[in-house]
Amino acid sequence: MYKVTFWFENGDAVEAFAAEGENLLEVARKTNVAIDAPCSGNAACGKCRVKLLGGVLDSKKTLHITDEEYAQGWRLSCVSKVIADAEIEVPDIASAYKSRMKVADLDSAKEIEIFEKTKADVAAAGILFGNDLEVVRVTMHAPTLDDTMPDLERLTWAAEEVCGTEHVKIPFVVMKHMAETLRKYEFDVQLVIRRNGDKVEVLDIRGPEEEVKICGLAVDIGTTSVAALIVDMRTGAILAKASTGNGQIRYGADVINRIIESDKPGGRKKLQDAIVKETLNPLIAQMCASAKLKASQIYRMCVAGNTTMNHLLAGVYADPVRMEPYIPTFFETTSIYAQDLDIHIFPHARVLIAPNIGSYVGGDITAGTFASCIWNKPTMSLFIDLGTNGELVFGNEEFMMSCACSAGPAFEGGDISCGMRATDGAIEACTIDKETMEPTLSIIGEEGQKAVGVCGSGIIDLISELFRCGIINPKGKFIREGARIRHDKYGMGSYVLVFQEDAASVKDVEINEVDIDNFMRAKGAIFSAIRVMLNSLEFTVDMIDDVYVAGGIGSGIDMRNAVNIGMFPDIPIDKFHYIGNSSLSGAYIMLLSNQAEEKVLEVSHNMTYLELSNEPTYMDEFVASCFLPHTDANLFPSLTFK
Amino acid sequence: MYKVTFWFENGDAVEAFAAEGENLLEVARKTNVAIDAPCSGNAACGKCRVKLLGGVLDSKKTLHITDEEYAQGWRLSCVSKVIADAEIEVPDIASAYKSRMKVADLDSAKEIEIFEKTKADVAAAGILFGNDLEVVRVTMHAPTLDDTMPDLERLTWAAEEVCGTEHVKIPFVVMKHMAETLRKYEFDVQLVIRRNGDKVEVLDIRGPEEEVKICGLAVDIGTTSVAALIVDMRTGAILAKASTGNGQIRYGADVINRIIESDKPGGRKKLQDAIVKETLNPLIAQMCASAKLKASQIYRMCVAGNTTMNHLLAGVYADPVRMEPYIPTFFETTSIYAQDLDIHIFPHARVLIAPNIGSYVGGDITAGTFASCIWNKPTMSLFIDLGTNGELVFGNEEFMMSCACSAGPAFEGGDISCGMRATDGAIEACTIDKETMEPTLSIIGEEGQKAVGVCGSGIIDLISELFRCGIINPKGKFIREGARIRHDKYGMGSYVLVFQEDAASVKDVEINEVDIDNFMRAKGAIFSAIRVMLNSLEFTVDMIDDVYVAGGIGSGIDMRNAVNIGMFPDIPIDKFHYIGNSSLSGAYIMLLSNQAEEKVLEVSHNMTYLELSNEPTYMDEFVASCFLPHTDANLFPSLTFK
Repeated sequence: MYKVTFWFENGDAVEAFAAEGENLLEVARKTNVAIDAPCSGNAACGKCRVKLLGGVLDSKKTLHITDEEYAQGWRLSCVSKVIADAEIEVPDIASAYKSRMKVADLDSAKEIEIFEKTKADVAAAGILFGNDLEVVRVTMHAPTLDDTMPDLERLTWAAEEVCGTEHVKIPFVVMKHMAETLRKYEFDVQLVIRRNGDKVEVLDIRGPEEEVKICGLAVDIGTTSVAALIVDMRTGAILAKASTGNGQIRYGADVINRIIESDKPGGRKKLQDAIVKETLNPLIAQMCASAKLKASQIYRMCVAGNTTMNHLLAGVYADPVRMEPYIPTFFETTSIYAQDLDIHIFPHARVLIAPNIGSYVGGDITAGTFASCIWNKPTMSLFIDLGTNGELVFGNEEFMMSCACSAGPAFEGGDISCGMRATDGAIEACTIDKETMEPTLSIIGEEGQKAVGVCGSGIIDLISELFRCGIINPKGKFIREGARIRHDKYGMGSYVLVFQEDAASVKDVEINEVDIDNFMRAKGAIFSAIRVMLNSLEFTVDMIDDVYVAGGIGSGIDMRNAVNIGMFPDIPIDKFHYIGNSSLSGAYIMLLSNQAEEKVLEVSHNMTYLELSNEPTYMDEFVASCFLPHTDANLFPSLTFK
Repeated sequence: MYKVTFWFENGDAVEAFAAEGENLLEVARKTNVAIDAPCSGNAACGKCRVKLLGGVLDSKKTLHITDEEYAQGWRLSCVSKVIADAEIEVPDIASAYKSRMKVADLDSAKEIEIFEKTKADVAAAGILFGNDLEVVRVTMHAPTLDDTMPDLERLTWAAEEVCGTEHVKIPFVVMKHMAETLRKYEFDVQLVIRRNGDKVEVLDIRGPEEEVKICGLAVDIGTTSVAALIVDMRTGAILAKASTGNGQIRYGADVINRIIESDKPGGRKKLQDAIVKETLNPLIAQMCASAKLKASQIYRMCVAGNTTMNHLLAGVYADPVRMEPYIPTFFETTSIYAQDLDIHIFPHARVLIAPNIGSYVGGDITAGTFASCIWNKPTMSLFIDLGTNGELVFGNEEFMMSCACSAGPAFEGGDISCGMRATDGAIEACTIDKETMEPTLSIIGEEGQKAVGVCGSGIIDLISELFRCGIINPKGKFIREGARIRHDKYGMGSYVLVFQEDAASVKDVEINEVDIDNFMRAKGAIFSAIRVMLNSLEFTVDMIDDVYVAGGIGSGIDMRNAVNIGMFPDIPIDKFHYIGNSSLSGAYIMLLSNQAEEKVLEVSHNMTYLELSNEPTYMDEFVASCFLPHTDANLFPSLTFK
C-alpha cells in the first residue's frame, strides 16, 4: 500500500492508502475527495486534472495536458496509477461542481424577485396558495383513576373535535413517542397535522408554548446542479436558498452514464447515496444552520428533477429508462416519505415529486412549464430549459408539445475546460475590444472577487464576442493572433480570459477550440430542436409570441448574444424572458399549494411528447446548427456581423 | 481484562473478556450467554447458579447455595465478581426459560387438536374464516415504442381490472423493485394483494409459475414464555409450531421490573431487542427452516400479549402503565407493520395486535376470551389464564368482567428452584406412594427422557400429593422424614423427586419449602381473585357452569389436584376444561379471519374491568388462600384429605 496525500487550495489535506496500480480517480472517490469527472473517467473531458507535488504517478499523456504542464506536474487523475507514495494538489476548479456549496445571501438575491414574480403569475392564473399542513392546539383532561382512556384514544378524540372530523389518524411513528410528550406538556399540546379532505393525519406533537415553524423544502435536482429553498409553509417566505453540484457527477456527466453506473452491482445504492447523503443532506444541514432551523421542522418536500434523477433519487431500477422502448417505472407517485429515501428532514414528511411525462421529459419540465404559466396564455409561448438535457415546451392554454435534446453539461460549465456553475468566481458576462482583443469581465461574487472559471452565460458572451471580433470563424476556429491567443503544438487555438496571476485559480482561465466546439454542439442541439418541433406543428419562428428561458445558465444571460451565436431563433429580443431556475420555482409553488400540485399533474397530462430521434430531419438540422450562427445565415437576418 | 470461559452441558464453550470486578451475570449477558435471572439479579431467586470449574471468582455466599455446594464450586452469577480468569459451567437448568427453543413435532402434537377444536367452536359461533390476503395473476402487454406507459400505471391498471376495483395502490417499497421483476417475468406475474373493501394494496410481485405461499404468523408473547405458529393463510393449516422463553426474562420476571428496566437510558431499545432480535426472529427463522419456508412469505402477523408486552414490543414508553393512574399508550392499533418493529418477515406485513382493555388486562386475554367462546354462551363461564399474571374473565353472551392478579412465574416454572417450562425434560405429572413416599413421574419427551426439572402441572400434582400423603402440612412445611426428605442447616425441608444420577441435570431435582411457599402464593392469588370477582357480582361458585383453564402450565394439568391444593373452587371436576394456550389460539383465529379480528375488538369493548387492588376484601382473601387448601376448609367440602 502507498500513501496518497491530497492537498487543497485552502491548505487542507486528506490522506488515503492505495494499492499498487490503483487508479488515482478511484482512490479520490473512495476517500471522498471531490474531483469532477463528467466523462466518467474516460480521459475525454480533462476536468480531473491534478498536480503532482511530490512522489511518483504512472500517468498517461493526453491532449488535455501540454508538455509544459506535464513538466509542471499536471496529470489527469483518470489516467494515473499509484505506483509509490504521492502528494497531489487538487485545484478548486477540479471540484467546481461538487464542492462549491453556496448558501445564498437572501437580502441581495436577484432570484428572490423571480420567485415572487412566479408566485404572482401563478396566483393571477387562479391558483390558490394553501397546503395540507396546519398546526392545531389540543387540550385534554389528564387521565385519572376514574378516566383511564389510553393516550391514543384520548388524543385522537380530542384532535377529532378540534379538527371537526371523525377521521384523525395517528401513525405508529407518532404513537411510539406520544406517552412521554403528552405527559411532559400535561396533555396540552400543539399538533402538526396534514389534512386531506376530511382525513387528518397527525405528524408531530409539540409543546403548547413553542413557536412551531412549519417549513417546506423545494429542490431542483439537475443532472449537474442542485438548488434548494427552505420556505415557511404558512407565509411562503423563503428562509434559505442554496445550490451545489450534484454529487453523482463523478459517475458521469449525463443521465445515460449515471444509469449505466447505477446498474452495476451496488450501483443503485451508490448513486442514491451520492444525491441523498453527499448532496441533499449536507445542503439541507447548511441551509438549516443559516436559517437557524431544525431539519425536523421541514414537514413537506417537493422535488423537481428529470426522470432519471427522480428514479436514481428513489433508488429505483432505471435501466429501462435508457433502453428502447424507454420506459420509466413511474410518472407520478404519491407514496414516498422522507424516511424512505433517508433524507434528513421530518421522517414522515411527504416527498412530492413533480410528475414525469416521458423518459426524457421529467418533473423539472412539468414544474418549469407550470411556473412559466404558458398553460394559461392564449398566445403561443416557447419554454426552453437549458439543462444538461435541453427541454422545450411549445404551446398555449389549448395544447402543449414537449421535446428533449441532449445538450450536455456545457450550459452549466461542464465540457468546458474552465467551465463552472454560475456561482462565486464565475465570469458571467464579458465583452471584447475588437481592436485590442482585451476582455472586460463581470464576475459573480463580492467586489474584488477573482475569476475561477466561466459559467454558461459568460461562455455565450465570450463566443459571441470572439465571433463578432473576427477572432474565431463560423466553425469556431481561431483566425487572429495576439497576446491572449495561443496555439498548442497540435495547432489547437485558445483565448486567455484571465492570466493565472490575476485569477483565483492555479492556471490561466481560457477557452479553447474543443470547448467552443462542445458549446456549439450544445447550442446546435437547442436550436435544431426548436426548428424540428415547430416544423412538426407547421409553425414558424415568427409565430412565437414569447420565449421563456430557464436554467442554471446564469441570470446574466444576454439574449442578443444567444441569438448571435445561433442558439435561439432570430426574433425580437423583447420576446425573450429569463425566468431563472423554473423547475425550482415550480417546485416552490407546488410545495406551497395543493392546488398547484394538482395543476402540475393536469399540465403534465395535457402535454404531448415529440421524440426527436424519430424525426427524420433532426440529424441534418443539428449538423447545420453547429456553426456560428448557422450554415443557413438567412435564418439570422438581423445579425450585423457574420 | 480476564478471560471467562462459559461451558455448556453439551460440551460447547463461549469465551468472554471481563474487566476486574465485573459482575459475572453482566458478562454473560453481554456475551449472549443465556442465564435466567427472574429476580433481575438481586440474589433473590437463586436461578442463576453456575459452577466454577477452574480459576477464581469473588462470590458472596447466599441462602441459595449450601456450604457443600459452595465447596463443589456452585455460585450465584449475580453476586459473583470476576477477579481472575475463570472457567464456568452453565447448567441447562440455568437457561431453561431462554434456551430451550422447541419446534414442535406437528404429527403427534396434542395441542394441534386444541387449535382445531377452537376453530370449530369459533366457526360454530358464526365467525367466517376469510382474510384480506389474496394472490392474483396479472398479465400485461409489454411496453413498446408505441405503448410507453410507465410500469406503475401499467401494473396499476392491469391489477385494477383483475381485482374489479379502481383503487389499487402500489406502495413505494413495491414500486422500488417492480421494473426488474416485471421484466424478468415478461409482464406476466402473480401479485400478493391485501384487500380492504374496494381498496387493494399490492404487497409483492412474484413469478407466474411460482407456487406462491401466503403464510401468517401467530404469536403469543407471554411475560415468561413465547409461543408461535406459522400457518397457511389459505387453508388455515399449521405449518410450524414452536415455543421458547421470552428473552426479556433477564431484565426481570415480571412486567413491573421490565418496565423499570425499559425506562433506563437505552432501555426501551434493549427490551425491544430482547423480544424481537433475541426471541422472535430466531424463533421465526427456526420455524421457517423446519417448515421449509422463506420468512418473506409471511404476509400477516398477529400478536397476543399482555399490555406491557405489547408496549415493549412496539418500543413504546411504558412507564405510565405501571404508575397510577395506569394508562397505556394504546388499547388497539392498526398502523404497525413488521418493518416498524424490525421483525424479520415480509417487511410490509401488517402486525395485528390483539386489543388491550386495561393496563393489566391485555391482548392475551381478549384473544384468549375470544378463543374460549364464552362471549357466545348463555350459561355462565369462568375463563382463567394462568400466566405470570393470572387473569380471569367471568360472564356470558350478555356481560363479561375481567380482573388480573399477580401470580408470578410459578405456573411456568419460575420462582421454583427446579422449575421449568412444559417442554422436554419437564416432569408434568406425578403421584407419590403414601407408604414409601416414592414418586411415580411422567416426563415430557421421548421414551427414556430423563428429568431436567418440573413444570407447572407437575408442581400442582407434587404439592397435592405431598399434602395428601401428609408429608407437608397445610402451611407447606415438611412434617415427615424419609430418604427423599432433607433439611438443610437452617431447617428448610425439601423433597427429592429425582436424584442427580438419574436426572438430566447437574443436581438433584427437588422441591423445597420456599418453592412450595412461592407456589402457594401463586395459587392463592388465583383463588382469591375468583372469590372477590364473584362476590363483587353477587355470584357464588356453584353458579359457574364451566371453567376454561388456559396457559402454559402444561396440558397434563390435573384439575382434581388443582382443586385439592385450593387453586380452583371445589365444583364438579367435569366443569373444568383445559383449553391450552388460548391467547395463541385466539391470535391464530384472528390471523386467519378478518371477521374474528373485528369480533375480538367487539369482545374487548364489551368487557368491564375490576381493579382488584381497589377491592377492600382482596388482601384478606389472598392471605386466607395461602394455605392448603385454604384456611376455611368449608370451602372445599369434597376433599377427602385435609
